[in-house]
Amino acid sequence: MLIRRCLSSAASSLPPTIRQLLASPPSSPTAAIQVNGWVKSVRKQKKVAFAVISDGSSEPGLQAVFTDVGLAKQLTNGASVRLRGMLKDSPGAGQAKELQVSEAEVLGECDPETYPMQKKALTVEYLRDHCHLRARTREIGAMLRLRDSAATAIHDYFHNNGFIHVHTPIITSNDCEGAGETFRIAPSSDPPSTTPSPASSASTSTASSATTAQSTPSEYFHHPAYLTVSSQLHLEAVAAAISRVYTLSPCFRAERSQTSRHLAEFWMLEAEWAFTSSVDDVCTVVEGALRHLLRAHAASSEMEALWRARAAEGGADKRPELLALADAPQPWTRLTYTAAVDLLKAHHARTNAFVFAPDWGKGLQSEHERWLAEEHVRGPVFVTDYPASLKPFYMRANDASSPDHRAPGATVACFDLLVPGVGELVGGSLREERLELLEAAIERHGLDRADYAWYLDLRRYGGAPHGGFGLGFERLISWMSGIESVRECVAMPRWAGRMLL
Amino acid sequence: MLIRRCLSSAASSLPPTIRQLLASPPSSPTAAIQVNGWVKSVRKQKKVAFAVISDGSSEPGLQAVFTDVGLAKQLTNGASVRLRGMLKDSPGAGQAKELQVSEAEVLGECDPETYPMQKKALTVEYLRDHCHLRARTREIGAMLRLRDSAATAIHDYFHNNGFIHVHTPIITSNDCEGAGETFRIAPSSDPPSTTPSPASSASTSTASSATTAQSTPSEYFHHPAYLTVSSQLHLEAVAAAISRVYTLSPCFRAERSQTSRHLAEFWMLEAEWAFTSSVDDVCTVVEGALRHLLRAHAASSEMEALWRARAAEGGADKRPELLALADAPQPWTRLTYTAAVDLLKAHHARTNAFVFAPDWGKGLQSEHERWLAEEHVRGPVFVTDYPASLKPFYMRANDASSPDHRAPGATVACFDLLVPGVGELVGGSLREERLELLEAAIERHGLDRADYAWYLDLRRYGGAPHGGFGLGFERLISWMSGIESVRECVAMPRWAGRMLL
Repeated sequence: MLIRRCLSSAASSLPPTIRQLLASPPSSPTAAIQVNGWVKSVRKQKKVAFAVISDGSSEPGLQAVFTDVGLAKQLTNGASVRLRGMLKDSPGAGQAKELQVSEAEVLGECDPETYPMQKKALTVEYLRDHCHLRARTREIGAMLRLRDSAATAIHDYFHNNGFIHVHTPIITSNDCEGAGETFRIAPSSDPPSTTPSPASSASTSTASSATTAQSTPSEYFHHPAYLTVSSQLHLEAVAAAISRVYTLSPCFRAERSQTSRHLAEFWMLEAEWAFTSSVDDVCTVVEGALRHLLRAHAASSEMEALWRARAAEGGADKRPELLALADAPQPWTRLTYTAAVDLLKAHHARTNAFVFAPDWGKGLQSEHERWLAEEHVRGPVFVTDYPASLKPFYMRANDASSPDHRAPGATVACFDLLVPGVGELVGGSLREERLELLEAAIERHGLDRADYAWYLDLRRYGGAPHGGFGLGFERLISWMSGIESVRECVAMPRWAGRMLL
Repeated sequence: MLIRRCLSSAASSLPPTIRQLLASPPSSPTAAIQVNGWVKSVRKQKKVAFAVISDGSSEPGLQAVFTDVGLAKQLTNGASVRLRGMLKDSPGAGQAKELQVSEAEVLGECDPETYPMQKKALTVEYLRDHCHLRARTREIGAMLRLRDSAATAIHDYFHNNGFIHVHTPIITSNDCEGAGETFRIAPSSDPPSTTPSPASSASTSTASSATTAQSTPSEYFHHPAYLTVSSQLHLEAVAAAISRVYTLSPCFRAERSQTSRHLAEFWMLEAEWAFTSSVDDVCTVVEGALRHLLRAHAASSEMEALWRARAAEGGADKRPELLALADAPQPWTRLTYTAAVDLLKAHHARTNAFVFAPDWGKGLQSEHERWLAEEHVRGPVFVTDYPASLKPFYMRANDASSPDHRAPGATVACFDLLVPGVGELVGGSLREERLELLEAAIERHGLDRADYAWYLDLRRYGGAPHGGFGLGFERLISWMSGIESVRECVAMPRWAGRMLL
């Protein structure tokens, strides 16, 4: 309380927002208050006029009532205004309070003839074309506030559990195992050569040797530089000292595919921690984070509004079943990959439902993932212990003690969390901490051991069993809100062919 | 309390960290506990052995006492261990509690002969060469925890004041006014042409036209794409709907200069808000944020340890004077640029102290900034209302009512916050919201109006007076901790010629 007072005095230049005013109205109903915002709608009658004013701070705007109709004369949709008046109990339905306006000032006009954000329903494509203005719509505004509150809940969960947030690098020398879906960077004044030089062609087996590696003088960093596709490897280095670390950080993939689940630039929650020894434990942390997140949003008016909008378009309002997951008495379903494939095969044999026949050793197709989460489990499902051949080199090989080994190393200690509507929301694993097995995996995957000298050092010097996961933040927002495409789950989306502003 | 119980049950796979154990020791002193961590030092005597164990969660590690000396036999610096025992009051000086060890297990060995992180003092250059391991040092560990707690305090301040956090884009079409210090990007499989195509050569005056702009097929985004140098313009678009927004986001400058204050990749706190009409108000928010930040760190053992380390190297421990700023009864000093130049000129006339003679219309050199903050004010100083010719196009022109106009438009409503030891920590301004004046400024700065069509739209449709600022996060950490170079203020620094990992 003391802190809060100090804060508001220090920042006295910030008058209360509409959200703050509605949450703590002035104690006297005749106190004069001032509201700044934009006109969302205006309805002028003979003896009274009404307008909805939004400052973007809350899901419902504030109803303003003009008994002096002249005050509302200049109000048009989209104009920015400063209103003075009294906050009174509202006799109308739909809001508890309304502003009885005594003074109105238009700060910034908005020509209704040319304003691109007309009141009529605008298509998502139209709004993508106007992404500098689309935060003015109710849905995108609610989505932005939901992102903010989701990130806050994530920070709370990890801090409460002893994690610290780390800013991992965006520019990296790691080219994502040469997969070619990375972005390469160079100074504008000195673009990269058109033939990428082989990654770390001259680096030797100790990390410090990178300073003496043969440099290409035209490279700003003396190495080819890429945008990160994942912070995991960097987080592992920090987790080998700080034990529990996480990051909410941008990641980049130069994908050509155009789906509702992929962006070229997206945000990822990634966590890594030491001294964990089972995939089950990693799943427990993920489930704990998501339960906390849902619990923190039990009364979110943003989630409510977004699901209501979805229902208005003919979709189902899945909010109740989502929120119920927060306190579900049983742990969320966990299945091994082998068990999942058996289920898929049995279903396919009965119904011939799939385009791709499920088979052990093959990746799960999106139709398989959807069936598992949406029809079989009807909720989130952790699929664990995939075949090693389907997964990256750093995942820990299962041995004889693991639940689902066929031969040592045939499966790895990993999981994907599949959720209805979205598919894969989280992926994680134990990381191989055994030096010899990791070296063998690097070789088996055809990677250059010299590139991973620093990563091997983490095992060589006081390595510890550890694990972690990555969660796509836009997919999380899509799951929580029912927003169909991740392109509407971030302020200014970027995908192949598409980058405005 | 209820929430905390739920949390720990959901994440029961996470045993308490050393920080948590020391903050809430088990109620029974004979309770068996388990500690995971790395050996920081070990001292073996005949009848007893001591080791300091760190799991990175707290500034002091945990002292472990082995009355069974055999248990400590395999312990070496850097090894990861799991210890079991009882947490007892420590008879020794330097710690309140110690672990009396009954079982010890080495999880990951560390050969003391080859371990790169020997106990002896390691130079900053050596640690930069081993940045995958340097989080294991006390200073870098403390810095990482300080970054985390500083970010948390920032989130708290802005949330308490009605702001929401927005993830602004990293990849942008804005080439930073062609300044050439940007990084350009392209898919690895399809590098950009060596001659950058002129920025938005074909875009027209409405934002939506970008979709129909002539595309260069080789560009992934159909436009040249850059890494952002600042989120400001994007934040302004969101602030024109959400009123109060901020971001803590990576920014990039392809600078060639090698200083202790510059990185190629750095994190910036940026905030923008609508309905603010004076630079003084913007400064008040910045000062409020920094006071809150310092107040939140009054008992920070990380800040204490970092200043102690600085003092041990012969520097001064400035922590008391920093913390005193949090509750200083007077607002921090504010000076106009004109007043600052007058002071600098008078000082220079008396002492001939500067290499560059101060003069109205010229930029403040770093020697000038240092003198103002370190010698004249001896604390933070806001310098306001710089000549328009020194500042970017978007800053609001001062008119006759402003404190320091010479002719209309001669100065702009801006400020730099200078602090001892660092120099410029924050820069901000009102943004020009008047359409005609902004158009004129774009022309005067030789920019292409078509590139800023979307930015002009923000003024055309319901524009509002607004302002904001940017704060370099690494510089903030340097200011709070006394760490000399920003290269030690981030986990894995990148600068010209330098990017490991």
